[in-house]
Amino acid sequence: MAIVTADLMVSLDGFMAGTDVSVSKPGGEGADALHEWIASLASWRERQGLSGGSRDRDSEVIGDWFDATGAVVMGRMMYDTGEAHWGEDPPFRTPVFVLTHRPRPTLVKQGGTSFTFVTEDIRDAVERARAVAGDGNVDIAGGADTVQQALRAGVVDQLRLHVLPVLIGAGLRLFDNLGADRPRLEQVGVAEGAGAAHLTYRVVRP
Amino acid sequence: MAIVTADLMVSLDGFMAGTDVSVSKPGGEGADALHEWIASLASWRERQGLSGGSRDRDSEVIGDWFDATGAVVMGRMMYDTGEAHWGEDPPFRTPVFVLTHRPRPTLVKQGGTSFTFVTEDIRDAVERARAVAGDGNVDIAGGADTVQQALRAGVVDQLRLHVLPVLIGAGLRLFDNLGADRPRLEQVGVAEGAGAAHLTYRVVRP
Repeated sequence: MAIVTADLMVSLDGFMAGTDVSVSKPGGEGADALHEWIASLASWRERQGLSGGSRDRDSEVIGDWFDATGAVVMGRMMYDTGEAHWGEDPPFRTPVFVLTHRPRPTLVKQGGTSFTFVTEDIRDAVERARAVAGDGNVDIAGGADTVQQALRAGVVDQLRLHVLPVLIGAGLRLFDNLGADRPRLEQVGVAEGAGAAHLTYRVVRP
Repeated sequence: MAIVTADLMVSLDGFMAGTDVSVSKPGGEGADALHEWIASLASWRERQGLSGGSRDRDSEVIGDWFDATGAVVMGRMMYDTGEAHWGEDPPFRTPVFVLTHRPRPTLVKQGGTSFTFVTEDIRDAVERARAVAGDGNVDIAGGADTVQQALRAGVVDQLRLHVLPVLIGAGLRLFDNLGADRPRLEQVGVAEGAGAAHLTYRVVRP
């Protein structure tokens, strides 16, 4: 049975994006290190239609994440800032469900990616993703606000943090805005990559 | 050659203590999970003169930290809130240098622990500790404010975080108050314990 996972790059001080996230800087200011790392991995580059990159434990972990994903859920901000960069052949290669307040017809792109716009809440988006994910996982891709919504709603089964050895100091923190709805976690795996620590947690259901 | 290390228990959301640190609650409110974990380890219990506890990878990592330590530096808040709990046979078993504004005579305790009060800055405290540490490391024990002073002053060679699978939500963050003096880090080791992820970083000198 597929699970709902959130696989996220974070700095050692807990940020998943820098400040001033925008179309020209989707990862925010000051957070280049998070995105430069993944762009150096062979598995990521293949997904983007690029050659080269390192074939190491980090690349393997990221490749496994892509391979296990059957559908993606993301927030409107991530979609809006990513759209122009992804172009006609986006790197998801699965159905993507975008949480938004504005209804829009589904966009079918090349390579297996489609964008369906969901105007209900995160639970509905996850259910719609699950319905088409087959044996694959539903991946909560971001941004921070959407991951936090999913954690507060209790729909996440697994959190996997790819922790980069960098201190960013400011930006969007993964674990902000959870209030009393902070999930209880169980550590299920720790892996050492060349450039990151990969920490996997199961979210314990109450 | 011995190094200056800071070996710290942190929650997955980056806190090294909870809120309202006090003599009756040195670890702060809401942060019990950090301290319960270490109290369950055989190596920690031995240091406290207690029997029992788990003999696993976590216990080994913490035991190695104790064994490698030749002298300790701590802040006055950590000393003041810990003093009564440590009693006449404190668990350090090395010279301890306490940063304070108020001069006080050195206290010699049982079991190899002494407390020397240093009214100069963190650099002086580290140099005095280094002078008596022999082949052992100088360990910056805490609290958060003292670790941050040491990071800003550039005197830390190694950071080792024992990351507990718990979200605390509020308290004292390890990486706050660094401003533009955030150190550049290099990941040198990642180890999986039964109850924690042990992440080791070298602080890169500019």
